[in-house]
Amino acid sequence: MAANDLPLDLAALRAAHARLCGVVSRTPQWHNDALSAELGLSLQFKLENLQRTGSFKIRGATHKIGRLLAQGPPPAGVVAVSAGNHAQGVARAAALAGLRAVVVMPVSAPLTKILACRKLGADVRLAGDNLEQAAELAHRIAAEDGLAFLHPYDDWDVVAGQASCGLEMLEDAPDMTLAVVPLGGGGLLAGVALALKLQNPAIRVVGVQTDAVAPWRRFLVDGSIEEVSPGAHTIADGIRVKRPGEHTRQVIARHVDEIVTVDDNAIAEAIVTLLERTRTIGEGAGVVGLAALLQGKIWLGADERAVCVISGGNVDMTLVGRSIDYGLASSGRLMSVAVTVADAPGMLMRLLKTVAELGINIRHVEHRRGELHVPVGMTEIILQMETRDFEHQRELIVHLVGEGLTVRNLLGL
Amino acid sequence: MAANDLPLDLAALRAAHARLCGVVSRTPQWHNDALSAELGLSLQFKLENLQRTGSFKIRGATHKIGRLLAQGPPPAGVVAVSAGNHAQGVARAAALAGLRAVVVMPVSAPLTKILACRKLGADVRLAGDNLEQAAELAHRIAAEDGLAFLHPYDDWDVVAGQASCGLEMLEDAPDMTLAVVPLGGGGLLAGVALALKLQNPAIRVVGVQTDAVAPWRRFLVDGSIEEVSPGAHTIADGIRVKRPGEHTRQVIARHVDEIVTVDDNAIAEAIVTLLERTRTIGEGAGVVGLAALLQGKIWLGADERAVCVISGGNVDMTLVGRSIDYGLASSGRLMSVAVTVADAPGMLMRLLKTVAELGINIRHVEHRRGELHVPVGMTEIILQMETRDFEHQRELIVHLVGEGLTVRNLLGL
Repeated sequence: MAANDLPLDLAALRAAHARLCGVVSRTPQWHNDALSAELGLSLQFKLENLQRTGSFKIRGATHKIGRLLAQGPPPAGVVAVSAGNHAQGVARAAALAGLRAVVVMPVSAPLTKILACRKLGADVRLAGDNLEQAAELAHRIAAEDGLAFLHPYDDWDVVAGQASCGLEMLEDAPDMTLAVVPLGGGGLLAGVALALKLQNPAIRVVGVQTDAVAPWRRFLVDGSIEEVSPGAHTIADGIRVKRPGEHTRQVIARHVDEIVTVDDNAIAEAIVTLLERTRTIGEGAGVVGLAALLQGKIWLGADERAVCVISGGNVDMTLVGRSIDYGLASSGRLMSVAVTVADAPGMLMRLLKTVAELGINIRHVEHRRGELHVPVGMTEIILQMETRDFEHQRELIVHLVGEGLTVRNLLGL
Repeated sequence: MAANDLPLDLAALRAAHARLCGVVSRTPQWHNDALSAELGLSLQFKLENLQRTGSFKIRGATHKIGRLLAQGPPPAGVVAVSAGNHAQGVARAAALAGLRAVVVMPVSAPLTKILACRKLGADVRLAGDNLEQAAELAHRIAAEDGLAFLHPYDDWDVVAGQASCGLEMLEDAPDMTLAVVPLGGGGLLAGVALALKLQNPAIRVVGVQTDAVAPWRRFLVDGSIEEVSPGAHTIADGIRVKRPGEHTRQVIARHVDEIVTVDDNAIAEAIVTLLERTRTIGEGAGVVGLAALLQGKIWLGADERAVCVISGGNVDMTLVGRSIDYGLASSGRLMSVAVTVADAPGMLMRLLKTVAELGINIRHVEHRRGELHVPVGMTEIILQMETRDFEHQRELIVHLVGEGLTVRNLLGL
């Protein structure tokens, strides 16, 4: 057992886990043969994307509400600020506890998120241009209506709730040597790290951030928190958290071994890989751990037995297709080129013949004459194609250039 | 117990199930609260899309190979014709049994299917323009090399293997009153129907076909098999089977209560619904049962307790995005209109203002001048937008028409 001067010990985590029983799903933990062989380790996925409300957040929210009810007179309800998984976790947990839930989202929140929360019974209010402005309204509502404000991560009861995920991981993989966990505010990582390290300090715990929003990047190296640029964008919006928690910092400083980052291309590729290997969908933030493994960002020892948390699956349906295309492109399976040819009969056919001979499937063809950037007398043909890998793409380009054509790879990969 | 003069009895099905143990997964069976409430029944999904190789097919293939090995000297290997789930089921089952597997696919088989089969250790041969032509080569190889030909459905050992799915369904939902099962050649439906009816004849068993390829459409009404048009297309390619099995016909005639059909729009919508509700992906053929329920194609009694089989999840990644868009459009959440406006400054802005005021998200804008079908002096603006539902779409069109604009709904829904 590791020394631990934090307010949570193993008994507290186990008590939290017991309280969640029946409300929170025990999500499956699946071994994947093919990826294990490919990456050279034993790899299991802890599938919190199959959790109720589609993410681990319901663990912390349910536990927090349970503690509020146990510790004093019940509040008139709860209020949360979130346009994502925390909102849905709070809405569901409050409904199950018979409490009113108010969720404040920025005005720009996607329609699907608003509807999802309303379906779970929450009173959704739209205010402000960002989460900070929405938070102002939330605090005002909390004060005026006597509602308890639920923080998404910076709360010991929330951390204890998320820790239940870690307890389950170790129960299902008692010989695990490595945990790979998405990192935003730090609630999940802190909870999982506590659950594992308090039982077996030899298990390595790695947190994974998205490159674009990585305040924790150097935290374990020099204790610093990186400033996040206001316009930073990432497809892992669930971990687009600028201000790490104070409580979670204490746990992570003590119990996490390493923090790595991955970029959006790697994340999109991981969404596709997860879908292909498990037939389950992960959201961008949910698959950063898999992305880090696929990218070789995490050092692997001999006989490594890893459990990788897929933390959520609430991806906007209107973005799934784009993420998949992005992931296919990132792995060399989708290609888009612009070929400039003489504006003469038969040129398109000649081009398509070369493509067909290489066994490449065409997805989309655009034949553009009169584009301003194309010289007069020439035509630009845009081809979107399905290829086997980058080598297959290179082969096509070599062929086309060999035929004297000007080819631009539009994906620039 | 029902009278049964077929070669399979409950003991045979149970023996088959026992033989599959350890090779085939016991797939999860999940209750879905939200859909149950929406559709007015208790609804569980039997998730064979989470089965090994991504579909139920490994059940029948594994059982057939097991019987071959138990009944005589082992064959030199097995051969199958398929560009889909049967191919992967056979490849995996043969590999696990230590047998060589040859899979013959039509020349046009998608790259991903070929690679998936090769990864599972099969020797993939490409021959012919369709499955019938591929089958000729397969039978020749079987004869020349002494390989056993594995039929995808018309074989009692295969039906007994698929029946294991039905045994699990009833074990996990002992009070079920209705089974909804995809129907192609009939192997899965026959197996599930046997497993259920031999234990409880009161359970209603409904088979679901895709409208475009529905040879079974009137089979239970007048015993006829409908001719399928050669060019018939459907996104449910896994059940694009023209010739129902002889063995499966006997079972279905006796033990299936009803056969219904669904069209591609309904199937695409079901893919989206499944993804949103379970975070798992189903292929077109896999979700036809859910599509039939969503469309109200299946009569529901009071206190109906249904188990709907999601039979597979091997959807081509390059098609997922399109299926989702198609499903979103089918459910009124994606809209595409062409608006003809005067070619004057500010027109695009005015249009976008109306859209924004209705809370509609824009996904794609195209501003086209010089299209041949647009009158001179006018411009066509194509808008692709995310809407809440069809009512939301109607609202927009009423507004635009009220502003004197010509609007064409490009999706024609």
